[in-house]
Amino acid sequence: METVIKIACQDEKGLVHKITGILFEKLLNVTRTNEFVDEAFNQFFMRISFTGDCPADQLHAELKAVLPTDANIRITAPAVKRVVLLVTKEHHCLGDLLIRSQFQDLPFHIEAVIGNHATLEELSRQFQVPFHLISADGLSREEHERLVEKQIDSYRPDYIVLAKYMRILTPSFSAKYMGRLINIHHSFLPAFVGAKPYQQAFDRGVKIIGATAHFVTDDLDEGPIICQDVVAVNHTYSAKEMAKSGKDVEKIVLANALKMVFEDRVFLHQNKTIIFE
Amino acid sequence: METVIKIACQDEKGLVHKITGILFEKLLNVTRTNEFVDEAFNQFFMRISFTGDCPADQLHAELKAVLPTDANIRITAPAVKRVVLLVTKEHHCLGDLLIRSQFQDLPFHIEAVIGNHATLEELSRQFQVPFHLISADGLSREEHERLVEKQIDSYRPDYIVLAKYMRILTPSFSAKYMGRLINIHHSFLPAFVGAKPYQQAFDRGVKIIGATAHFVTDDLDEGPIICQDVVAVNHTYSAKEMAKSGKDVEKIVLANALKMVFEDRVFLHQNKTIIFE
Amino acid sequence: METVIKIACQDEKGLVHKITGILFEKLLNVTRTNEFVDEAFNQFFMRISFTGDCPADQLHAELKAVLPTDANIRITAPAVKRVVLLVTKEHHCLGDLLIRSQFQDLPFHIEAVIGNHATLEELSRQFQVPFHLISADGLSREEHERLVEKQIDSYRPDYIVLAKYMRILTPSFSAKYMGRLINIHHSFLPAFVGAKPYQQAFDRGVKIIGATAHFVTDDLDEGPIICQDVVAVNHTYSAKEMAKSGKDVEKIVLANALKMVFEDRVFLHQNKTIIFE
Amino acid sequence: METVIKIACQDEKGLVHKITGILFEKLLNVTRTNEFVDEAFNQFFMRISFTGDCPADQLHAELKAVLPTDANIRITAPAVKRVVLLVTKEHHCLGDLLIRSQFQDLPFHIEAVIGNHATLEELSRQFQVPFHLISADGLSREEHERLVEKQIDSYRPDYIVLAKYMRILTPSFSAKYMGRLINIHHSFLPAFVGAKPYQQAFDRGVKIIGATAHFVTDDLDEGPIICQDVVAVNHTYSAKEMAKSGKDVEKIVLANALKMVFEDRVFLHQNKTIIFE
Repeated sequence: METVIKIACQDEKGLVHKITGILFEKLLNVTRTNEFVDEAFNQFFMRISFTGDCPADQLHAELKAVLPTDANIRITAPAVKRVVLLVTKEHHCLGDLLIRSQFQDLPFHIEAVIGNHATLEELSRQFQVPFHLISADGLSREEHERLVEKQIDSYRPDYIVLAKYMRILTPSFSAKYMGRLINIHHSFLPAFVGAKPYQQAFDRGVKIIGATAHFVTDDLDEGPIICQDVVAVNHTYSAKEMAKSGKDVEKIVLANALKMVFEDRVFLHQNKTIIFE
Repeated sequence: METVIKIACQDEKGLVHKITGILFEKLLNVTRTNEFVDEAFNQFFMRISFTGDCPADQLHAELKAVLPTDANIRITAPAVKRVVLLVTKEHHCLGDLLIRSQFQDLPFHIEAVIGNHATLEELSRQFQVPFHLISADGLSREEHERLVEKQIDSYRPDYIVLAKYMRILTPSFSAKYMGRLINIHHSFLPAFVGAKPYQQAFDRGVKIIGATAHFVTDDLDEGPIICQDVVAVNHTYSAKEMAKSGKDVEKIVLANALKMVFEDRVFLHQNKTIIFE
Repeated sequence: METVIKIACQDEKGLVHKITGILFEKLLNVTRTNEFVDEAFNQFFMRISFTGDCPADQLHAELKAVLPTDANIRITAPAVKRVVLLVTKEHHCLGDLLIRSQFQDLPFHIEAVIGNHATLEELSRQFQVPFHLISADGLSREEHERLVEKQIDSYRPDYIVLAKYMRILTPSFSAKYMGRLINIHHSFLPAFVGAKPYQQAFDRGVKIIGATAHFVTDDLDEGPIICQDVVAVNHTYSAKEMAKSGKDVEKIVLANALKMVFEDRVFLHQNKTIIFE
Repeated sequence: METVIKIACQDEKGLVHKITGILFEKLLNVTRTNEFVDEAFNQFFMRISFTGDCPADQLHAELKAVLPTDANIRITAPAVKRVVLLVTKEHHCLGDLLIRSQFQDLPFHIEAVIGNHATLEELSRQFQVPFHLISADGLSREEHERLVEKQIDSYRPDYIVLAKYMRILTPSFSAKYMGRLINIHHSFLPAFVGAKPYQQAFDRGVKIIGATAHFVTDDLDEGPIICQDVVAVNHTYSAKEMAKSGKDVEKIVLANALKMVFEDRVFLHQNKTIIFE
C-alpha cells in the first residue's frame, strides 16, 4: 500500500517545484502526483502517493518549511480505515459494504454497525460485525445522539458512514464529526432534499432519478458532494419502483464515494470537494 | 409514413379488445401498439401506428362509439410538423435543429425563427429560414409578446420550440400554446430552476450537470418533463466550462424530446408525460 | 404477485383483439400488456400480466384455440423462481445475489451454490445457502459436468446462473439447460470474447469497459444478450484496476438481467432477446 | 489562450522538480499541470499550460537540457488549429463541425472540405467553406489518394478529420498523416470493425451501440482510441433505427475527441492515448 501526502495551502509560484524537490531529495518512489489551483480563492491542492519507507515527521517538517504559513499537510501511512456504520431498516447499502469489508474490496474495516432499529442486526451478525441497537424511543434527539456518539467513539473510527440512516442529526453531531461523516442521499442533489425524495421525483414526473454521496454538515443534504450518479426511469415506474431502482444507484454511488475518501483522494473546499481520481 | 392514433380516456375492462376490434375489422396494417394504464387515476392511454389508407373521420367515429364518454381521440395523418423556433443569442440548439430540418433527420420543418436579438439572423439565413427580429426594447412584456404571437400565428405552426429563448413568458402566452410549446432548460430539473443554472450548479459543487426538455406551463420550469440527460463534471470545471459542456446535452436532449413529440409518442397527464418510445 | 402470460406465434391480423377478447370475457384484472411484431420474421410476441385467480389450463386452451398453430403460450403463476448458482473464486456477483435472495429484492430463491473451488463456501454459509464443492481436478470436462448436472438437477431449478463461473461448458451442458442458463461476461460483447477480457481491454486502450448478461448457447459468449452496461476508464487504469471497476458493472448488469428474466419479461428469438420492461 | 508544453520521455526521479524549476525561474503564470508515468514502459508524460509571453525556443532549450536524451518536447503557442475535413454522403458530423467552427465552439478552423461525392457541397457552401469534389470514379485507390493528398496539403492543415468519410485508406496515406489523422467509427470498438457496424450490431442483438473516435493507423479501425460513448437500444430498433440513433453519439464523440486533441491534451503511446482532461 501507498503513503499519501495531501497538501492544501495558499497558492504561490513554485510550490510544485519545492514540494517535488523534497520528494526527489529523499529519492521517494513516487507513484502518482496530482495538483490543482482554485484560482478564484488562490488555493493550491496537491496529492502525492509513494511507496517505500519515509519518516513521516521529518517529511512533514521539511514540507512545512517550504510551504506558506498555515499550509495544511497530511501524511497518511498505508492503513485500512476504521469505519462505523449507522443504519436504520434498509439493507442494501449495509449489505454491499459488509461484503466489501469482508473481502477488502475497499481499504476499510467495519468496526461496528449501530442501528436505531433491530432490523439489520441479523445481517451484521452474518458478517460477524458487532451490532449495537440504540433505539430513539422515549429519548430526546440529544439524548439519543449522546448514546450513539458514545458508541461510535468507543471504536475510534476514521469515518462514520450513514448507510441509509434515516434520523435527522443535530448540528452538534455534524460538527463533532465534521469531515469524517458521510451520507448517501437518495436523490440527485440538490433536487428533492429532505424526506421521501422518490415520492417527490414521482410527483414531478422526472425521467431520471439519482443518488448523491456527500459529507454531512449542519444543513440537511447541503454538504460537499463527493459522488453522484443517475438511472433512467419512465412513466411506468411508481414511486415504489423508482425507490427500488434507486437502491442500486445508492449503493454504487456510496461505494464509489468511499473509495475516493478511503484512498485519500478527497479535499474539502468551499462546501465542495476536489477529488484526484 | 405512418398514421398515428392516440387515445386517452377513463379506464375500463375491454378497451384494448374493442379498439383492436375496429382496427382488425378495417384490416389496417398496424405497425405498433402500446398501451398503459395509470391506475392511480384510472386513466387509459394507447398509441397505434398503421400504414395504408383509412378515412380518419370514419375511424374516429367508430372509436368514439366504443370508448367511454369524453374519450380523447386524436388521429394524425402522416405529415411533417410545422415548427416555429424562438431564439435569443445562443446558437447551439438552433444550429442543430436547422441541420435536422434541412436534412429531415426529424419529421418537422422550421417555418421561421423569431429572435429577440439579431445575433442568430445570419445562421437562419444560411439555411434559408425566415428570421424575424422582434426586440423587446422599449416594450412591456405583454406588448412584446403580442408581436411575437402575431408572428408565430402567421405560420400556423404545430409546435413552438424555445431553443434557448431567454425571455420569461406571461401565463397568457403559455396558456395560448398549451401542449404545443416546448422549452429546453439548462439544468437537470427540478434542480436549479430559473436563471443561471450553471452558476448555481458550480456553486453547489455538483459532479453531474444536465438538461431538461419540457412542455411550458404557467410556472417557470415546472411543466411536464419530456426528456432529460446528464454529463459528468468535476472540480476543474468553472461555471463557464460547465455551461460549455452542458450545451451538447441541451441540444441532444431537445432533439430527443422533439423526436418523441413529432412522432406523436407523447401524452400529457397530471403535469407529466407518458411516452411510448 | 401477478400471473404472466407470454405468447409467441406467427403474426396475423387481429391477434391482440382475439387475445384481449379472452381476457375481457374472463374479466381478468389486467395490469400491463405489451406486444411487438418482428416484421422481418413475421413473428408476434405479447406479454400480459394480471392479478386474481384464473384456471391456467382453461385460459391456455382458450388462447390456443384462437392463435395460429404452433403458437407458444406460457402461463406462469406467481411464484418465486428456484435458482442454482455456479461459482468459481470471485465473490462479488455471488455476494450481491445472496443478499437479494435473502431480502427478496428479486423474486427468486437461491436453492444452492455449486463451486469448482472451496473459496466461496464460507460466504454461502453466512447466508445459510447449501454449498457444494465439485472440483474439476483429475476429471475430464464431461465427467465434471455430469457431477455438476446431477447436483443442479437435484434442486429442480427454474434457472441456473453462472455467477463468474469460469469453466468452459460443453455443448451438451448448454443444450440441456437451453433457455434457463444465464451468464455474466466481463466485457461489453461482442468485444473481448473469451478469456481475460480486461487484459484485452487494457491492451486495446479502450476508454469504456462493460459487462454483458446473456443466455448461454453452444458458442462461447455468443448467446442472446439480455442486458449490458458500461463504465468509463482512462489511461491511469491498469488491467487490474479495470477489472476492479468492472466488478460493479458485472453485478448490477447481472441483477438487472435476472430481474427481467424472473419477472417473465424476456422472449428468446433469433439469438436475441425481446424484453418487455 | 494558453501556451501548452507537452513532454514525453523516459521516466527518472526528479523530472517534475526539474521541469517546474524552469517554469518557476521564468515566473510563468502556470494554469494547469498534469503528469503521468506508465510504469510498465517507464515513460513519463507531462502537460503544462500557462498564459503570458515566453520565448518558446529558449524554453525548449532549457527543458531539453534537464530531461533525458531523446525527450519529446512540444511547445504550442495559442492558435486555432487548421483543419481539413474529408466527407462522403452523411451530413451529421460535417454539419456539427461546421457550426462549431463558425462559432468557435472549439479552437479550430475548417480550411476546406473534401468529398468523394458532391452530396455535401451545398452544406459546406452554406458555411462559406471551400468544398473540393474529388471523385474516385475511374481511378485506382492510389491515384485517388494522390489527388486527395495534394488538396489536403495545399491547406497545410494541423489535422485531417475523417467525418464519416467512407473510403478505405492506403497504409501510405495513414503513414503520411500519422498523428494528425482522426476518424469517427460508428461502433464501440473493438466491436464491429469494418463495414456496416450497425447491421452487425442489429444481428448480434446488442442492447447498447456506440461510436469511437481514434487516430488512424495502417490497420482498419485499430488505431489509438481517443473517445468513446454509447446509447441504449432495444428490440424495437431496426438496423436503420440503430444507425439513426447512433448518429448523435458519433457527432458528440467526434467533437469531444477533437476538443481533447485541439487543446493539446492527448499523447500517443503504445497504440493508446493518454489524455489530460
